[in-house]
Amino acid sequence: MIETLESTQVSHETLRTIDAYWRAANYLSVGQIYLSDNPLLKRPLRIEDVKKMLLGHWGTTPGQNFIYAHLNRTIKQNDLNMIYVSGPGHGGPAVVANTYLEGSYSEIYPHISQDEAGMRKLFVQFSFPGGIPSHASPECPGSIHEGGELGYSLSHSFGAVFDNPDLIVACVVGDGEAETGPLATAWHSNKFLNPATDGAVLPILHLNGFKIANPTILARINHEELEQLMRGYGWTPIFVEGKDPMKMHAAMAEALDVAIGQIRSIQQNARETGDTSRPRWPMIVLRSPKGWTGPKFVDGVRNEGTFHSHQVPLSDPAKCPEHLKQIEQWLRSYRPEELLDENGRLRQEIADLAPTGDRRMGANPHANGGRLLRRLKMPDFRDYAVEISQRGCRGIGDTHVTGKFIRDIVRLNEEHKNFRIFGPDETISNGLEAVFDVTQRQWNAAIVEDDESLAPTGRVLEMLSEHQCEGWLEGYLLTGRHGLFNCYEAFVHIVDSMFNQHAKWLKVTSELPWRHKIASLNYLLASHVWRQDHNGFTHQDPGFLDVVVNKKAEIVRVYLPPDANCLLSVMDHCLRSQHYVNVVVAGKHPSPQWLTMGEAAEHCAKGIGIWDWAGNESSSDPDVVMACCGDVPTLETLAAVSILREHLPDLTIRVVNVVDLMRLQPKSEHPHGLSDSDFDALFTKNKHVIFAFHAYPWLVHRLTYRRTNHANIHVRGYKEEGTITTPFDMTVLNDLDRFHLVMDAIDRLPETGGRGQRLKALMQEKLVEHRRYINENGQDMPEIRDWEWSARS
Amino acid sequence: MIETLESTQVSHETLRTIDAYWRAANYLSVGQIYLSDNPLLKRPLRIEDVKKMLLGHWGTTPGQNFIYAHLNRTIKQNDLNMIYVSGPGHGGPAVVANTYLEGSYSEIYPHISQDEAGMRKLFVQFSFPGGIPSHASPECPGSIHEGGELGYSLSHSFGAVFDNPDLIVACVVGDGEAETGPLATAWHSNKFLNPATDGAVLPILHLNGFKIANPTILARINHEELEQLMRGYGWTPIFVEGKDPMKMHAAMAEALDVAIGQIRSIQQNARETGDTSRPRWPMIVLRSPKGWTGPKFVDGVRNEGTFHSHQVPLSDPAKCPEHLKQIEQWLRSYRPEELLDENGRLRQEIADLAPTGDRRMGANPHANGGRLLRRLKMPDFRDYAVEISQRGCRGIGDTHVTGKFIRDIVRLNEEHKNFRIFGPDETISNGLEAVFDVTQRQWNAAIVEDDESLAPTGRVLEMLSEHQCEGWLEGYLLTGRHGLFNCYEAFVHIVDSMFNQHAKWLKVTSELPWRHKIASLNYLLASHVWRQDHNGFTHQDPGFLDVVVNKKAEIVRVYLPPDANCLLSVMDHCLRSQHYVNVVVAGKHPSPQWLTMGEAAEHCAKGIGIWDWAGNESSSDPDVVMACCGDVPTLETLAAVSILREHLPDLTIRVVNVVDLMRLQPKSEHPHGLSDSDFDALFTKNKHVIFAFHAYPWLVHRLTYRRTNHANIHVRGYKEEGTITTPFDMTVLNDLDRFHLVMDAIDRLPETGGRGQRLKALMQEKLVEHRRYINENGQDMPEIRDWEWSARS
Repeated sequence: MIETLESTQVSHETLRTIDAYWRAANYLSVGQIYLSDNPLLKRPLRIEDVKKMLLGHWGTTPGQNFIYAHLNRTIKQNDLNMIYVSGPGHGGPAVVANTYLEGSYSEIYPHISQDEAGMRKLFVQFSFPGGIPSHASPECPGSIHEGGELGYSLSHSFGAVFDNPDLIVACVVGDGEAETGPLATAWHSNKFLNPATDGAVLPILHLNGFKIANPTILARINHEELEQLMRGYGWTPIFVEGKDPMKMHAAMAEALDVAIGQIRSIQQNARETGDTSRPRWPMIVLRSPKGWTGPKFVDGVRNEGTFHSHQVPLSDPAKCPEHLKQIEQWLRSYRPEELLDENGRLRQEIADLAPTGDRRMGANPHANGGRLLRRLKMPDFRDYAVEISQRGCRGIGDTHVTGKFIRDIVRLNEEHKNFRIFGPDETISNGLEAVFDVTQRQWNAAIVEDDESLAPTGRVLEMLSEHQCEGWLEGYLLTGRHGLFNCYEAFVHIVDSMFNQHAKWLKVTSELPWRHKIASLNYLLASHVWRQDHNGFTHQDPGFLDVVVNKKAEIVRVYLPPDANCLLSVMDHCLRSQHYVNVVVAGKHPSPQWLTMGEAAEHCAKGIGIWDWAGNESSSDPDVVMACCGDVPTLETLAAVSILREHLPDLTIRVVNVVDLMRLQPKSEHPHGLSDSDFDALFTKNKHVIFAFHAYPWLVHRLTYRRTNHANIHVRGYKEEGTITTPFDMTVLNDLDRFHLVMDAIDRLPETGGRGQRLKALMQEKLVEHRRYINENGQDMPEIRDWEWSARS
Repeated sequence: MIETLESTQVSHETLRTIDAYWRAANYLSVGQIYLSDNPLLKRPLRIEDVKKMLLGHWGTTPGQNFIYAHLNRTIKQNDLNMIYVSGPGHGGPAVVANTYLEGSYSEIYPHISQDEAGMRKLFVQFSFPGGIPSHASPECPGSIHEGGELGYSLSHSFGAVFDNPDLIVACVVGDGEAETGPLATAWHSNKFLNPATDGAVLPILHLNGFKIANPTILARINHEELEQLMRGYGWTPIFVEGKDPMKMHAAMAEALDVAIGQIRSIQQNARETGDTSRPRWPMIVLRSPKGWTGPKFVDGVRNEGTFHSHQVPLSDPAKCPEHLKQIEQWLRSYRPEELLDENGRLRQEIADLAPTGDRRMGANPHANGGRLLRRLKMPDFRDYAVEISQRGCRGIGDTHVTGKFIRDIVRLNEEHKNFRIFGPDETISNGLEAVFDVTQRQWNAAIVEDDESLAPTGRVLEMLSEHQCEGWLEGYLLTGRHGLFNCYEAFVHIVDSMFNQHAKWLKVTSELPWRHKIASLNYLLASHVWRQDHNGFTHQDPGFLDVVVNKKAEIVRVYLPPDANCLLSVMDHCLRSQHYVNVVVAGKHPSPQWLTMGEAAEHCAKGIGIWDWAGNESSSDPDVVMACCGDVPTLETLAAVSILREHLPDLTIRVVNVVDLMRLQPKSEHPHGLSDSDFDALFTKNKHVIFAFHAYPWLVHRLTYRRTNHANIHVRGYKEEGTITTPFDMTVLNDLDRFHLVMDAIDRLPETGGRGQRLKALMQEKLVEHRRYINENGQDMPEIRDWEWSARS
């Protein structure tokens, strides 16, 4: 069954110890699901010993206990640096049982002690209000992967081993999870791994055959197809299949020895010879029954080996005495008296199977990455400043400027190998081409003549899968490193749900004192909604921000720097920060530059502010506030202000620019929120505010609805109008252009009288002229293309 | 190169015609990218003939033109019913060129006539403001798949062929797209296809080797691995590899004959013998150079066969005369004078290669699915009504009731086979088990003893991939059928981006008179945020609604029925509707029933209304409005009202329930929006409104910020607090529970005085009691579990 010549022998005695360890973990798992008392079954089981609400999942648990016990043996024997990723959902009972058995659980939670009293608490807390969930949740030591949402285990595992040459991640992939898209493409991660400078992932595809109520695809194709699939993905599969425990122990022990042997041999070869060409890494296919060792039948229906074992197999002991009897038989089938001493502690000869100290998978520092976090070395972002010869001078594209800053971050941290850039083939397209001056795209598939910036090692990872980019980066961050995900704004929605889960992970871990803070997850969304000139409607969606701000205020930050110097300041801040999700939206096309570096740093530190030089207010309140957030809205707002000041010189205008979107929220809602008095000082208590916003306009209303002056805030933003057209026409289609903004202001300012109405008429003429011009010429009018900021009043 | 014994011969003459057709399409493609005039090159090319803004994508185009020409020959020869799905992004020039050549384009757009004048317009409109995008956009006849966002071509194709036994979808899969997760798992769709009752998908994996700036993975693994991968996915690959046009024509023609032969033989066998066991369907791997036939070098850098050909190879003819020269040479290399007559019409002997009438891929009715749409036969939803013995009587779980209604829709439409249910293994979990009384899960992988509800044909498709469910359903709807996607609320975020694209597709097609309306995309989100008792925090996310309401108001509808009778009424409405996206959020757990069928139908028709029987107002305005939206918020609101009415009998309370969320928006913003006077009549102009909401609370503010009484609307909803706990405790953690709602009301009603304060103190005690009780018992207090509605005042 095992396809190898280099098999090793594991003694029968060791196999018996593994079996005992497995039984102990199974016992503790069933105990978690069922017992509120009588944890050692010192007396016959009574209904009072059983939890009133039976919640939890058994199906995947015995298989994961089996794997964990075998990994313990292998780690100890080979002194491996290994962590465990539990891909199948609902593996909670297994990882909790095992970290408890190895001692790492009680070290973190001393009240869950390794004795009868602690075991009782261990059982009671599981799936209990105020207790712990049934996944490999953040509360569980050794976990970097929750498993609540399926599909990301392999991506997280690869993220963990990049730049960790000694680390092996044992990644259990559920056969349900394997049907998801993200997992199906994650097998290709092996084309991005360097065997010399990265660690290894050992995938263990766990074919227990069923999901919630269905068989799984990979369990229902024949052996030949499954083997071809894994080989086609570039892996060497080792099959372990069956259900007889002792035969399976022998097969699994041998499979692991073969796999570890192959990993070591691949790594040794690459590291000694420098030959880093892509190896065929080993992986294990473990086919074992769902709900293995659980009840064979429940109420006359087959349970072990079917989807009926997915949750709680015997679900109604209160009403059905037969269930209670079966639960007791099931628990006693593990012969707990052989495994645990009378105080409930695992017998030493069994406990010795597991490694000790930080080699325990529940105590490995890589699984609590903040412990390993080293601050990034950062150049002074001010050194990359754009010279502002005059307000509004044309830059080279804001992200291109930041690209040089990031290039030097790459360079400065080359030694520690703890910074990476991820993107779906868009790092150049997003304007970060400068990084390729100092590094390459890491790529381990074939390289041919004429390829550019591809190499076996490099700081940039590009695969056309936003899921992979996100999953790799999350794994990289969770193991204590730093990184950046650059992505088209519209398509970052592809990872909405992954973002949700990571934000939830950060929220929960921030409340666990033993979890050290990790580096922030930084998104750079260049190629944004307003500049999809050649891509059109499908590439226009600024709604990721709406998804982000739904998450806990302590975790999420959103920045929309208006120019290159502001972007530098913001990126510097984000890359230094910890335990946030930072979303930065910035442009890549040549666009006006407004603030000197000093002004930008000050403006970004405040996150919001009045641009005195753009407005013309005196000491009293202005007549109108022109607010803007985002690079394109800032341009259109300043162009509108320029028109207003020229044509209505008596009007006093205040210009407010927003970089840190969270400043708009009340302080009670977000730590960055402005106090009401500060907000009122900026936006006035009663003047009209014409607000040009980068994203969907109602997001501003959602953030400001409690503010004094909210009824006077009028927001323009993207409203799902667009196609392939000119950059300026995109703003026209969404009423965000300078002409509309001027008209909006006049509509709110009846006191502008006849002059206002004449200016409005002029604006309408301009819009007609614009439409005619682009229809004839396919580009914007010269007065738009060549526009320069001036404040003539 | 072709792996088959049954090869056929295509005459050399035919191959030459195919080549001519291909050259014509290539000529028209390059023309679209470059030319504003001189479409037939009747004079030497001048810079004035070239567009000022050069936008578009060449890289994928010649390969797709190659495929389309070969498909034309095959369709005509075999009288195939075939449509074309363009998976690679930016195949716009190819599909536009080909539908123009075959005549379907000019039939829809008569001004783009098949002559020199029309050709000039065809060229000018491409990637031009007000023109057409560079994808296979909705504007292009024959398209059901835009391709702007990558990854869904195969899923759409399979959706199209379910229940269309005569249809073949030729699906071009880009090798960039093939890296995405959704595409990587979509290959497994063959495990769900019935060769007798469904049609066939012929995937053509187009390995042109490059993405935007990178090679692709599948082009850089060796032949053996690629073949293993495709075989592992269950396909039989046929390889066509090379770059010499005439050799490639011969190979491709033969490959298609083999593939079509295999498809027909598989279908014939299944249909004649009844053996529907899973066949190995054929697929084609076409390896050809990116930018094939384009310039070999540009500015000294290799272009054809590299990623440099991705967009516009010669990008600056205005400044670089050499570019202009090369453009002309490139265009003339296709020898247009051999292909087009002097009026610009394709010569008849070449045009004859293509099929005619509805066999043309641009005219096939399946690609304009509304043409084939047949109304669903619907039973009377009132027949499934829940008897309301008294207000608040406990139901069996709302979706379980609707399950029977849907079961009978399945039954009634069995004959026409135009209704399907899609879900990621959750149809039973979401409460729709009744459908398995009359149908099965369609499944074509192995079936073994003890399997339940699996069969080669069935109306339910379940794969653990939300992407697949969504993609299949979209393909099914786009080809003129009906369906339902049932999904856990939290995990529907996985398809946020697919929803975005489908909503955009619906918006654009609704503006094209020749595009017939299709059935709505219906989501049933059961297993919602408030009832994740055993799944916890990762399964709690009601934010899909925020994503949905960002899209065009004409397209999106959101319903939150409070009980089973309302759910029946809503589902009836949604399944009859066209060209919307309907999102329905409903519960599956036993919960109180409020409205008789008659009341429910009336309430849902209005979408919002006062529940007189719950409040106690007299003719004048009430003291407070207690509003609710969603089943759990409605329960907690009514429980709060019950407490308020008992303890503060002098208080007059109005209860408003919202089913149709869009009613909250102003009429100007959404067609369902209430007028301001109607809104004021419900919510008053100045009374406090305590609003209990299903999702994130700020969504209500976003919808109502323009309303008269907005400042008095106080919303409770999910605020990212939760874990494994009791159902009621979930509401407590988010301040949405009855006790908090009572306290909220009292806080806003100082006139309740000492009695109010005493009630508030009582509520605080209740919360303490609740916390203590669940900590001790792991379940809710009896007074919560056994609560029954009563209005004692």
